[in-house]
Amino acid sequence: MTTTQVTLVQIDNYGPWTVTPEPRREMDLQALQSRLFADIAQFMGPRDAYVFSTRYDNMIAVTNGLDGAAHAALQESIGNRYPVSVSLGTGVAERPIDALESANRLLQTEGSAQDEGRTEVLAGDYLTETTPSDLQIGHFDVVNVTGKYTDRLNEFDTFLNVERAYSSLTRYLREEHGALSFFVGGDNIVAVCPDLPERAFADAVAHVEADADIELQVGVGRGASPHEAGFAAKHALEACRAGGTSVELSGASILGD
Amino acid sequence: MTTTQVTLVQIDNYGPWTVTPEPRREMDLQALQSRLFADIAQFMGPRDAYVFSTRYDNMIAVTNGLDGAAHAALQESIGNRYPVSVSLGTGVAERPIDALESANRLLQTEGSAQDEGRTEVLAGDYLTETTPSDLQIGHFDVVNVTGKYTDRLNEFDTFLNVERAYSSLTRYLREEHGALSFFVGGDNIVAVCPDLPERAFADAVAHVEADADIELQVGVGRGASPHEAGFAAKHALEACRAGGTSVELSGASILGD
Amino acid sequence: MTTTQVTLVQIDNYGPWTVTPEPRREMDLQALQSRLFADIAQFMGPRDAYVFSTRYDNMIAVTNGLDGAAHAALQESIGNRYPVSVSLGTGVAERPIDALESANRLLQTEGSAQDEGRTEVLAGDYLTETTPSDLQIGHFDVVNVTGKYTDRLNEFDTFLNVERAYSSLTRYLREEHGALSFFVGGDNIVAVCPDLPERAFADAVAHVEADADIELQVGVGRGASPHEAGFAAKHALEACRAGGTSVELSGASILGD
Amino acid sequence: MTTTQVTLVQIDNYGPWTVTPEPRREMDLQALQSRLFADIAQFMGPRDAYVFSTRYDNMIAVTNGLDGAAHAALQESIGNRYPVSVSLGTGVAERPIDALESANRLLQTEGSAQDEGRTEVLAGDYLTETTPSDLQIGHFDVVNVTGKYTDRLNEFDTFLNVERAYSSLTRYLREEHGALSFFVGGDNIVAVCPDLPERAFADAVAHVEADADIELQVGVGRGASPHEAGFAAKHALEACRAGGTSVELSGASILGD
Repeated sequence: MTTTQVTLVQIDNYGPWTVTPEPRREMDLQALQSRLFADIAQFMGPRDAYVFSTRYDNMIAVTNGLDGAAHAALQESIGNRYPVSVSLGTGVAERPIDALESANRLLQTEGSAQDEGRTEVLAGDYLTETTPSDLQIGHFDVVNVTGKYTDRLNEFDTFLNVERAYSSLTRYLREEHGALSFFVGGDNIVAVCPDLPERAFADAVAHVEADADIELQVGVGRGASPHEAGFAAKHALEACRAGGTSVELSGASILGD
Repeated sequence: MTTTQVTLVQIDNYGPWTVTPEPRREMDLQALQSRLFADIAQFMGPRDAYVFSTRYDNMIAVTNGLDGAAHAALQESIGNRYPVSVSLGTGVAERPIDALESANRLLQTEGSAQDEGRTEVLAGDYLTETTPSDLQIGHFDVVNVTGKYTDRLNEFDTFLNVERAYSSLTRYLREEHGALSFFVGGDNIVAVCPDLPERAFADAVAHVEADADIELQVGVGRGASPHEAGFAAKHALEACRAGGTSVELSGASILGD
Repeated sequence: MTTTQVTLVQIDNYGPWTVTPEPRREMDLQALQSRLFADIAQFMGPRDAYVFSTRYDNMIAVTNGLDGAAHAALQESIGNRYPVSVSLGTGVAERPIDALESANRLLQTEGSAQDEGRTEVLAGDYLTETTPSDLQIGHFDVVNVTGKYTDRLNEFDTFLNVERAYSSLTRYLREEHGALSFFVGGDNIVAVCPDLPERAFADAVAHVEADADIELQVGVGRGASPHEAGFAAKHALEACRAGGTSVELSGASILGD
Repeated sequence: MTTTQVTLVQIDNYGPWTVTPEPRREMDLQALQSRLFADIAQFMGPRDAYVFSTRYDNMIAVTNGLDGAAHAALQESIGNRYPVSVSLGTGVAERPIDALESANRLLQTEGSAQDEGRTEVLAGDYLTETTPSDLQIGHFDVVNVTGKYTDRLNEFDTFLNVERAYSSLTRYLREEHGALSFFVGGDNIVAVCPDLPERAFADAVAHVEADADIELQVGVGRGASPHEAGFAAKHALEACRAGGTSVELSGASILGD
């Protein structure tokens, strides 16, 4: 059984800020959003947690191992260095989507994302103990994306192919399992899952093949932290590449319940 | 008639680099990719050009106004400051997709994206003159995303709604018009279009309503540079918000052919 | 009695890298150096540690609270994201200069700063326990720098005045007490000291007045971490500003030995 | 005869901002200051201009080639992405110190650096033409710093040696010639000079030898832009290293008046 701690990072009142007193230059917004995300990634990374850019004004993080003090430190640092501030809500549940639901509710209860009076909410449940089976992560990529797409099509059509695969996979995993999947660049998708057997990953690959006509492969890992699970998943994915297989579970994934 | 200059920014040999000698920590890759994109955005921005993160190892930029020397300067700076280098191909055509096709071919001719012997390609056609009607940009967003989604659903389901709208719009505009559209955060989509009449934008909004059940609005702008067109589009979008309309063309958009 | 843990961060083989195969553009080096320092500051900050840019290719950090694993994490992240790598040596002693001496020797023993075969050294002694009196930090600034200098002289002459004050103070504190002092911007100097009585700070202020003809004031704080001591020092400095005094010890500084 | 365009970049009302409502964490201030400087370096670099961190809340840039529009673009981008804004004053004169004096006066006339009502000043004289002899830059470093200091002493004592050399050189060049010199990391000093003959550089080296007991070498370059002059100086410095000489002028430096 998994235990997933999810944090929603929401920039306070961002929509209005981007157009007040006038719309701001697009490349400045892109740089600000990307560097804020990178800073959060650099905060999460050495703590073995993960964060995904998602919509940039709203970012989803998997934060097993981070307590309230760590969240407060992140919030304060951003508040000191950016022209915007962030609210952080955290929830814990077996399924990632349910943990996110809790996290979200904490913020929505305090006020709207565009309520200028609601800033720097810091609330949530934080795990006090972790176990090696808490998280399960699948790292998917497209089989031979370079040969089939990148070196042959124009980049936008390659992108649309990868996007179609992501779109199909992410909805399937969310609806079937309450998993949260994110495109992380190139042809890579990281899926944060509840406790799923190997067959569930094979089914997901088959679904995307049938639904989007794209061939994926996946490495699956387990761990007490996102990094532990995710890094094991990356290594398992290398095994797919080496062995020509569709699904590989890292040693650490073969767990009883 | 539009004239679009598109540059493909491709990180050389990135796939192999991310796993050699061993896979690298995911949050380090995320930070590197995002900061590289932000640096390119900060190079493009003051030159009135635009860049979109796309797949991060491959980024699409609209570079009307940037010549070969500017591209060389960008390439050199990245080569001096990152553990990776980039190849830059640039093409010019009436339709954005065709300009990208040319740009892509320049790189693909030199070698694979994963050919460690192919690095820092710098090739292309660069506009020597620009006119105020060269570019047309539509800036779309979701009508009342905060009220309908962000304050009510969990972030992932909100994201899936925005993603569905983007997916529908981007394919429609690419297939119908050879336009290139990009999700830029929040609920915003920036579409780089050929010369389209107002009705074409209304049709696009109607298509997404029917196909994805999401209501979009769009501001359209025209200009000699991406910033000029895009900023006019942002202002026109504010007019949609103020007037409750679906499509607004900025003054500068009302051009004869 | 203080216990200071000091880490030397040294970029491996940096001199040769900056000119191989050719000298690199100065502004690229400046951006790389400054962003590397900022990344390390963002690693240290939430862990309540401090780092100072010093010579950029060599940076001095005060790392009470950081163990070997934290140092390894920092080293790995830099190695994944920069075109250079760093060696980290850590020492512990009562006086800051002695802790640095130990840290330095660990690197120098392994090889030259410009030995391309010596990379990513990770060695040292790390504190396993901390106490509230471990560190003493003095935060100095120039009395009324804005009125006396910034608003009256050209910036370079203002800078030379601040530099003269720093030069005088830093040598005095190093020679008298084995303290390490760093200019941190504006008119601020942060001094990491052994256990000094209030009078020692008054003497330092008097020395700079006589030697450099610049009037300083100082807030002094004590703590188990650099942040704890340094933040208390900042608050004490505000008391100097408010009360017109030269030396203020924060409540936490009034410790028996 | 040289023509130097100098811009003073001053953060508006920074002192008060750093302590309002409370003092801010030191490492957040360090990261913000360093990243702001790096951003400005990345703006200046591809335009062949130079900027030096100086006191961080006040930075001196040499901006031959940048007009008012470029300065406005920089100011706007910073204002969109940071919690602070900057004022920019620019002056032109034969001697760097005099150009800075003009630039400074433009800001001081508008209001204090700590006047919360004075923000985003943008004023100055901008060159409309440039010639290859406009700037002269000397790039100094310490002869064999690694062998004499870095590999033998602790870093702080090495730093104090380099600092003593910088202190001596910078005052000498400012008083004798109105030059502006900056420590740029490692053992490197970049001096922006008026028109000086080779002998003047030999005299400067001799002065530092006598005054601070440190042996420097220097490469000198000339150009229409800071990069042109500075890069020629870097190459000339390599000639010092190769030939064991104290002073080398790049080919481009041998100019008649």
